Amino acid sequence: MENKENNAIQPKAIVLLSGGLDSTTVLAIARAKGFACYCLSFHYGQRQAIELARAKANSVKLGAADHLVLNIGLDAIGGSALTTDVKVPKNRTFEAMEQGVPQTYVPGRNTIFLAYAMAWAEVVGADDIFIGVNALDYSGYPDCRPEYIAAFEKMARLATRAGTEEKRTLRINTPLMHSTKKQIIQKGMELGVDYSTTHSCYDPAPDGLACGQCDACRLRRKGFSEAGIDDPLPYHKKAG
Amino acid sequence: MENKENNAIQPKAIVLLSGGLDSTTVLAIARAKGFACYCLSFHYGQRQAIELARAKANSVKLGAADHLVLNIGLDAIGGSALTTDVKVPKNRTFEAMEQGVPQTYVPGRNTIFLAYAMAWAEVVGADDIFIGVNALDYSGYPDCRPEYIAAFEKMARLATRAGTEEKRTLRINTPLMHSTKKQIIQKGMELGVDYSTTHSCYDPAPDGLACGQCDACRLRRKGFSEAGIDDPLPYHKKAG
Repeated sequence: MENKENNAIQPKAIVLLSGGLDSTTVLAIARAKGFACYCLSFHYGQRQAIELARAKANSVKLGAADHLVLNIGLDAIGGSALTTDVKVPKNRTFEAMEQGVPQTYVPGRNTIFLAYAMAWAEVVGADDIFIGVNALDYSGYPDCRPEYIAAFEKMARLATRAGTEEKRTLRINTPLMHSTKKQIIQKGMELGVDYSTTHSCYDPAPDGLACGQCDACRLRRKGFSEAGIDDPLPYHKKAG
Repeated sequence: MENKENNAIQPKAIVLLSGGLDSTTVLAIARAKGFACYCLSFHYGQRQAIELARAKANSVKLGAADHLVLNIGLDAIGGSALTTDVKVPKNRTFEAMEQGVPQTYVPGRNTIFLAYAMAWAEVVGADDIFIGVNALDYSGYPDCRPEYIAAFEKMARLATRAGTEEKRTLRINTPLMHSTKKQIIQKGMELGVDYSTTHSCYDPAPDGLACGQCDACRLRRKGFSEAGIDDPLPYHKKAG
């Protein structure tokens, strides 16, 4: 859907939107900066596909210009607890999360997501891409690090028409890169994000309730706790 | 399918295989170098989807270890004559092909293809990716240039586990980068490629016959002509 603003004079941005706490906050930030936001979500075979309904709801609430959900076959490639039968780790300490790359890492996921974002940016004429990666509280994923994002941006500027005849550029914006979860939540609350319709859990129950025990739930709950704000999300009764 | 060789001692490579002349030659080159080849093809909404049957046939003929065809929704993003109703340009001169980016350019295509290849490489444990890009006779695509490939390789080395704990590397191999179409065909003939089951045409007739007039057909026919070899492919009767 197109929103009511005049997109002709508004700069456009592609916003990678998972439906989680981070990416929803990023959408609010991009909107506050005045961008017409083209939100991009993926059905990639993730066990937490419920997040896509949350993404849709938040794209509407936050006045996105458009929201595209692509079906991409990442589960055919496998290699992750999020797309296979491998068990999602539970109740890990925050120290344990800092050690190595966890089983919930999806090989190539951010690169594939950013590649689609780059393609859509070229088609709609956007010079900006927003992604909610985070080098703190980041669960040890190699494709969330600042040096990775910088290398992707450099590659992307050579990959498209913008890198040849059009003399345009492309920016990968990572407004949460150096924020703690607490700071992200505080920023989102300022901007009016409704966290009751975000989804963070890697391993939701069949009824969609968050487990409260996976790395994503634990980092989220810690963030709300440190911010002194009640997490508006209901958790499964076993969450503890 | 797995071939009969002992993959345990063979290095593995991901080979991006479209079913066309270039990528089939690349598969033959990777096989000749001794790689166990994991071929990767995409159904991305291209009008020339017949190429996928050719890719399958060639992966078998050339003894690939595996062949994966992924359904990815590039047509939802659009922006190309190959994935929309925009007409494929016909009978352009070779000089015209050198001017600017043609309408058959698919925004982000090689970046998306390479991103999936990078993901699969990580899962199967391959350190090499092969892609049939070509800076001569290349039809003006920004994502076929050597500087783009170098930037992708640099990014990919930061994107995966290999870039952190495993101390492995990743190489993007472009054995055709500086070859003319004539040289590619000569190389393939030496290696026993059967070009009668390759498909190059951007705009095949409903019966699958190549048009003979699009940029891809014209570059292919010029290559065979310069190599002094008959193109074994039948063309549509209007091809001229």
